[in-house]
Amino acid sequence: MKTSPDPIETALNEDIGEGDLTSEFFVPPNRRVRARIVAHENAIIAGTKTAAGVFQRVDPATVVQIIAADGAAINSSETVMEIEGVARSLLTAERVALNFLQRLSGIATLTRKFVDAAGNDRVQIIDTRKTTPGLRALEKAAVIAGGGSNHRFGLFDMVLVKDNHLSARSGLRGLAEAIRRFREKRPGLRIEVEADTLEQVRQLLQIDGIDVILLDNMKPAQIREAIALGRNNMKFEASGGMTLKNIRQIAATGVDFISIGAITHSARSIDLSMELTDVGT
Amino acid sequence: MKTSPDPIETALNEDIGEGDLTSEFFVPPNRRVRARIVAHENAIIAGTKTAAGVFQRVDPATVVQIIAADGAAINSSETVMEIEGVARSLLTAERVALNFLQRLSGIATLTRKFVDAAGNDRVQIIDTRKTTPGLRALEKAAVIAGGGSNHRFGLFDMVLVKDNHLSARSGLRGLAEAIRRFREKRPGLRIEVEADTLEQVRQLLQIDGIDVILLDNMKPAQIREAIALGRNNMKFEASGGMTLKNIRQIAATGVDFISIGAITHSARSIDLSMELTDVGT
Amino acid sequence: MKTSPDPIETALNEDIGEGDLTSEFFVPPNRRVRARIVAHENAIIAGTKTAAGVFQRVDPATVVQIIAADGAAINSSETVMEIEGVARSLLTAERVALNFLQRLSGIATLTRKFVDAAGNDRVQIIDTRKTTPGLRALEKAAVIAGGGSNHRFGLFDMVLVKDNHLSARSGLRGLAEAIRRFREKRPGLRIEVEADTLEQVRQLLQIDGIDVILLDNMKPAQIREAIALGRNNMKFEASGGMTLKNIRQIAATGVDFISIGAITHSARSIDLSMELTDVGT
Amino acid sequence: MKTSPDPIETALNEDIGEGDLTSEFFVPPNRRVRARIVAHENAIIAGTKTAAGVFQRVDPATVVQIIAADGAAINSSETVMEIEGVARSLLTAERVALNFLQRLSGIATLTRKFVDAAGNDRVQIIDTRKTTPGLRALEKAAVIAGGGSNHRFGLFDMVLVKDNHLSARSGLRGLAEAIRRFREKRPGLRIEVEADTLEQVRQLLQIDGIDVILLDNMKPAQIREAIALGRNNMKFEASGGMTLKNIRQIAATGVDFISIGAITHSARSIDLSMELTDVGT
Amino acid sequence: MKTSPDPIETALNEDIGEGDLTSEFFVPPNRRVRARIVAHENAIIAGTKTAAGVFQRVDPATVVQIIAADGAAINSSETVMEIEGVARSLLTAERVALNFLQRLSGIATLTRKFVDAAGNDRVQIIDTRKTTPGLRALEKAAVIAGGGSNHRFGLFDMVLVKDNHLSARSGLRGLAEAIRRFREKRPGLRIEVEADTLEQVRQLLQIDGIDVILLDNMKPAQIREAIALGRNNMKFEASGGMTLKNIRQIAATGVDFISIGAITHSARSIDLSMELTDVGT
Amino acid sequence: MKTSPDPIETALNEDIGEGDLTSEFFVPPNRRVRARIVAHENAIIAGTKTAAGVFQRVDPATVVQIIAADGAAINSSETVMEIEGVARSLLTAERVALNFLQRLSGIATLTRKFVDAAGNDRVQIIDTRKTTPGLRALEKAAVIAGGGSNHRFGLFDMVLVKDNHLSARSGLRGLAEAIRRFREKRPGLRIEVEADTLEQVRQLLQIDGIDVILLDNMKPAQIREAIALGRNNMKFEASGGMTLKNIRQIAATGVDFISIGAITHSARSIDLSMELTDVGT
Repeated sequence: MKTSPDPIETALNEDIGEGDLTSEFFVPPNRRVRARIVAHENAIIAGTKTAAGVFQRVDPATVVQIIAADGAAINSSETVMEIEGVARSLLTAERVALNFLQRLSGIATLTRKFVDAAGNDRVQIIDTRKTTPGLRALEKAAVIAGGGSNHRFGLFDMVLVKDNHLSARSGLRGLAEAIRRFREKRPGLRIEVEADTLEQVRQLLQIDGIDVILLDNMKPAQIREAIALGRNNMKFEASGGMTLKNIRQIAATGVDFISIGAITHSARSIDLSMELTDVGT
Repeated sequence: MKTSPDPIETALNEDIGEGDLTSEFFVPPNRRVRARIVAHENAIIAGTKTAAGVFQRVDPATVVQIIAADGAAINSSETVMEIEGVARSLLTAERVALNFLQRLSGIATLTRKFVDAAGNDRVQIIDTRKTTPGLRALEKAAVIAGGGSNHRFGLFDMVLVKDNHLSARSGLRGLAEAIRRFREKRPGLRIEVEADTLEQVRQLLQIDGIDVILLDNMKPAQIREAIALGRNNMKFEASGGMTLKNIRQIAATGVDFISIGAITHSARSIDLSMELTDVGT
Repeated sequence: MKTSPDPIETALNEDIGEGDLTSEFFVPPNRRVRARIVAHENAIIAGTKTAAGVFQRVDPATVVQIIAADGAAINSSETVMEIEGVARSLLTAERVALNFLQRLSGIATLTRKFVDAAGNDRVQIIDTRKTTPGLRALEKAAVIAGGGSNHRFGLFDMVLVKDNHLSARSGLRGLAEAIRRFREKRPGLRIEVEADTLEQVRQLLQIDGIDVILLDNMKPAQIREAIALGRNNMKFEASGGMTLKNIRQIAATGVDFISIGAITHSARSIDLSMELTDVGT
Repeated sequence: MKTSPDPIETALNEDIGEGDLTSEFFVPPNRRVRARIVAHENAIIAGTKTAAGVFQRVDPATVVQIIAADGAAINSSETVMEIEGVARSLLTAERVALNFLQRLSGIATLTRKFVDAAGNDRVQIIDTRKTTPGLRALEKAAVIAGGGSNHRFGLFDMVLVKDNHLSARSGLRGLAEAIRRFREKRPGLRIEVEADTLEQVRQLLQIDGIDVILLDNMKPAQIREAIALGRNNMKFEASGGMTLKNIRQIAATGVDFISIGAITHSARSIDLSMELTDVGT
Repeated sequence: MKTSPDPIETALNEDIGEGDLTSEFFVPPNRRVRARIVAHENAIIAGTKTAAGVFQRVDPATVVQIIAADGAAINSSETVMEIEGVARSLLTAERVALNFLQRLSGIATLTRKFVDAAGNDRVQIIDTRKTTPGLRALEKAAVIAGGGSNHRFGLFDMVLVKDNHLSARSGLRGLAEAIRRFREKRPGLRIEVEADTLEQVRQLLQIDGIDVILLDNMKPAQIREAIALGRNNMKFEASGGMTLKNIRQIAATGVDFISIGAITHSARSIDLSMELTDVGT
Repeated sequence: MKTSPDPIETALNEDIGEGDLTSEFFVPPNRRVRARIVAHENAIIAGTKTAAGVFQRVDPATVVQIIAADGAAINSSETVMEIEGVARSLLTAERVALNFLQRLSGIATLTRKFVDAAGNDRVQIIDTRKTTPGLRALEKAAVIAGGGSNHRFGLFDMVLVKDNHLSARSGLRGLAEAIRRFREKRPGLRIEVEADTLEQVRQLLQIDGIDVILLDNMKPAQIREAIALGRNNMKFEASGGMTLKNIRQIAATGVDFISIGAITHSARSIDLSMELTDVGT
């Protein structure tokens, strides 16, 4: 099932508009070609089904074979997918297919770097809501392809009480009561609350019904101390200022989750291109 | 006028779904607040109207004042916009508004760096179709905010004959005829053709009706030579492998346009956040 | 924020089509009226904002005052809302507004009956996915208005492994491994698993990572025994064959949740009508 | 042709959202199954094509065979349809398919009860506009499946002047003129006018151009008297307070139509479920 | 209420796309202007609300005053509407507003010519389904503005059995049975049947349940004869080959309706333009 | 790729609504037929793919064979396309398919008349933005089919500075600066400026960056003089008051383009109909 509006359709409408003038006037209508999408750097691949979907939306008769599936690690000059069909159809779809594939592979690649840098199987590297408007589901799947895990999908499937929410309700006062009321109406969903200091962590630990405490911008020593305060079922998430350099130290604190906005909001596109390998007559 | 589907609506639907549970259960319904969006690094701002639109779509009664308009250069800790309204409405809109603003300001900031690095008023730094699916119009406006220019918007408003098109029609053979036919049917649109070698440039210069020649992945010396071959009205665009280090040298060749995919596909988000400045009772 | 497509717009399009012929030809264009929506039986009201939204979508100048808010218990002949505006606008909106209000109040009323019949504050009466296609969010809000709680909203915000899922993967074999894998990718969501026998309950209690066990179609004595087997954090839900007569007995078992499809799929509409109270000239 | 928005797509989007987590993580991707939808009570079936459409929208490769077509009377434990395909696809579609089928069969079943209770072939049992928002076309087809007839589809395909319309134009004054004007502009559509008393019936019979008189909430004796006043082409509809007990007496008056809101707004869902009959490996 | 998709929105999206480049770059942003839409030939006006809606969709702050309402007869050089607002907004909306207004006024003007040429108050000049795809509701309103009447809106609100339908069911055989069945299921809608010969008229007059007979391409003498065969309630419609020259003769036969496809499918646009009357500074 | 909303879908929804009652009740469900669309006058055909698309959207199993492709000249009584399939499907699609085909062929036919009347291969007959709302892309393709060329598609793909734009910025003052700014931001698009007098032509020829001058409502002698003033690359377009009688004289002036609004806004529909040629049993 697709989200609505479908990002593939949106992207094609935006790019094609009233028609692909270059293909229409400069490529013979019945010419058939084979092509491959090839990497020009090492990468973790993601978005292959979306890219394949672009080719097939433009022309259902185009045949796409995915060589490197989502999550695969490929080296520079290796092939990601092979495509065969009418030349016009491939050329019309090329840029949009690559736009998805390059961006999503960029996210998967950066996620994998953080997972590897954490050097610790127990901690989970998770994403945030800092995703590209309109592409959240695709980008969260790219995080999975990179070995990460997904935090909540949006405002609807989990509660995350942040500092601004607490300010707006005059701090922790009344938080316990609000949690009780939420548990009563929506018993199936998790509740996470942000803490900026160890004192706040101590206060939150007094309150029933919290599943996760978010430790925002704390140093490794503080994180360690916060975790030591916790009881059996409380989980801890660390966030803020994560880099490939400091993540190993954070991961070593024993924290359950490390959330990193950069894996979706600042990943660099992977260098991929489509090459024609066989041009019919 | 808005594009269809409207990226603001798409992004809000994706994030809010069946409702913002945290605001609904953890923020008093009538609490009013003031907030500001503040920068944590130097940046060129873009996307302010889109961010303002997000707040107003969530709640038309929210008042937004844009302090730093699109194209403004701001320093770390300066304010981009001020917002006042119902706390729940601001908190529901916060993340989506920031997602647009951080991403678009990232594009404007990187564009400005390339424009400054080119160090040459005559050359135009232009974008490509390597934009985020669904956000092309917004990203192209961010390029303008950063001091760049826009290449074609899509496949529909200009012809750009690339190597893959030429391969698919057996090289330059028949190109002249196709150009003539296009001129006959769509006389109002520009035609650009890619050349990978100086020999190709020479061949293209024999053909009537080409407005711009795209010099793909050529070295500065080659670009200079190509331009020297041109006549009065021919324009030249350089593309491929542009960096903040090499762009000055390319710009110095006298080329008319330099196109850079990275300004849209690999810009890093700017670090911005929303802070509550006044919490009512 | 509204879901997409907006049920109000869908319902009005379906009813009005090319126009309300009767109002257009049989009601003077500028006649203003006052009206009230009145109950003809005792009820718990729900859907008032949706009904008000119908009047305002047809004509933004219509003024609606909600007298009995969602969750209010009203008696026969009491007023639910008052409406004032152009006669044509009220008459065009009347049926669709009532269709929402009567159906949603029917759900709230039946939910309240089950909550009262359970006679036990500790147990939560929850809904199911057996809602009217297109109206899930509205119907789940009506359940809340009636004093019930919401189970998952859909297939996306919680895992519920039912007998058909277990059959399709050859029973409980591999269930533990699937739960581990899900926990790794989506750590923030709950997992519930159905058990049809006490033997299954025992097996499920051996597996890590289950939040709730669904006891399907068990008798009160079995439910009691199942709960006795559970440990600290395990929650239990009873489902299947709940009636206003047997629910007290089920509730007395100490089960955490009782889910009832009938409160959404088989509620009878509440008898409400719109009466003109003041007809201008 | 489908209405827009398509109720099948709306219902699937609402239920599936970002994906069916349970099927995705707990059911092997290639497992194939056979299933049947079976009744747990006697019923008249309706909505089979819609239910089949749900399965096929989720996965076009799913094969559905309808055993009991719309309008068929089936007994408890009989099969309504058989489905074969990928297990994940069937399980994702199951609930939405059943939600349509159970609700629409409930309408057909209740309609048939009223038709049978009327015990009179000449009278037509017709529906009203009291349908579920978004499902009118499907529910009106279910009424046909149950042996009933359809009143107007909406405000656009017939005129029905009710008491509120008459109040808003100061009673019957000017009604004749409005009818004349409507006949002039839209000669192809029927006009029905409500009467609450025999005196009103007499007045309406003086006016040219009325096709049907709606006798609202009249007792059988009054209905008989009203019909006796009528001339050759005038048709009469009775409405208000119809039950399975009193409908025979109403039908015996010789009235042409009896309209019953309850057949769409208060039908109980039929108890149906999907059972896996063959689980592949 | 608007049809979906709204023709105003469709037309603006199609014309504006990514933006009105000319207004954006060549008109100062805050310049305010007054303008009027003026006729360059005599005409019956239609579509004024749609044209006003175009201006207000582009910019809700634009003020439009309609001088000549739908149905008004204006002379060359008279003003249809006055508009005041931001220059950019008026210039962006101008062409689309005129496209609607010129076309719809063309239809109203041609309709009026036929109504006047008929020279007979008793006959009704009616439209057909030969309307512009996407504009049916607007064009049918223009027919009303011109003094005509509306035939059915589409395939859904009336039955019209034409020669192709009769061929497909082997002529009139079974027609009576089909009419009976339709009357049973949809008692509120009219039935019209086409006759090409007087013999067919005679056959149709034997069948119960027909409201109108369509006399296709008959000469005045034949039409007269057909009408003479009819009984009390049968209505007759003449169609085929109507011109401003022959319509008086057809109308004089006593036929009830004359349908003319040309009033919607071949009306010439009325010459209207927008003139700036006051250009601010 | 289709524009959004798709005109075929819009037209079918508008015509079919809740269903084609006549086909459903008056045509046997399994009857298969063959039909042909035949011309009743000489014409240039356009819109064949759209008409074929209508048949296939209603029923994907309908087989359509296009006999006269877009651009073909056919004589009265010749066949445009042949269709075979289920009778109900053909009859439901018939009117909408013809509405497209008759209108678009009307445009192609009128365009061809102007092209032939111009009697001059060098000049290009071009369309305007005076197209039917919602059908621009189809109508511009019909102009191509008739031998014409396309002017800009909308406000987004070319600049055309008209008298109203110049008035709003106080005449030609500042025009040069605005052109320079546009060239800087959107270097790939053409700029055309309207001139109403020879004096204005002279002024425009002083300004850099104009590609085309639009000579509005000038007489042939003036047009000749304007062209004589031009230099190497300047193109000239004549517009205003073109008829089949005066176009030859305009074309003979040596102007590059002649734009004619009437070819889209006032073309008469071509008389075509669908005839059943073989009715199965």
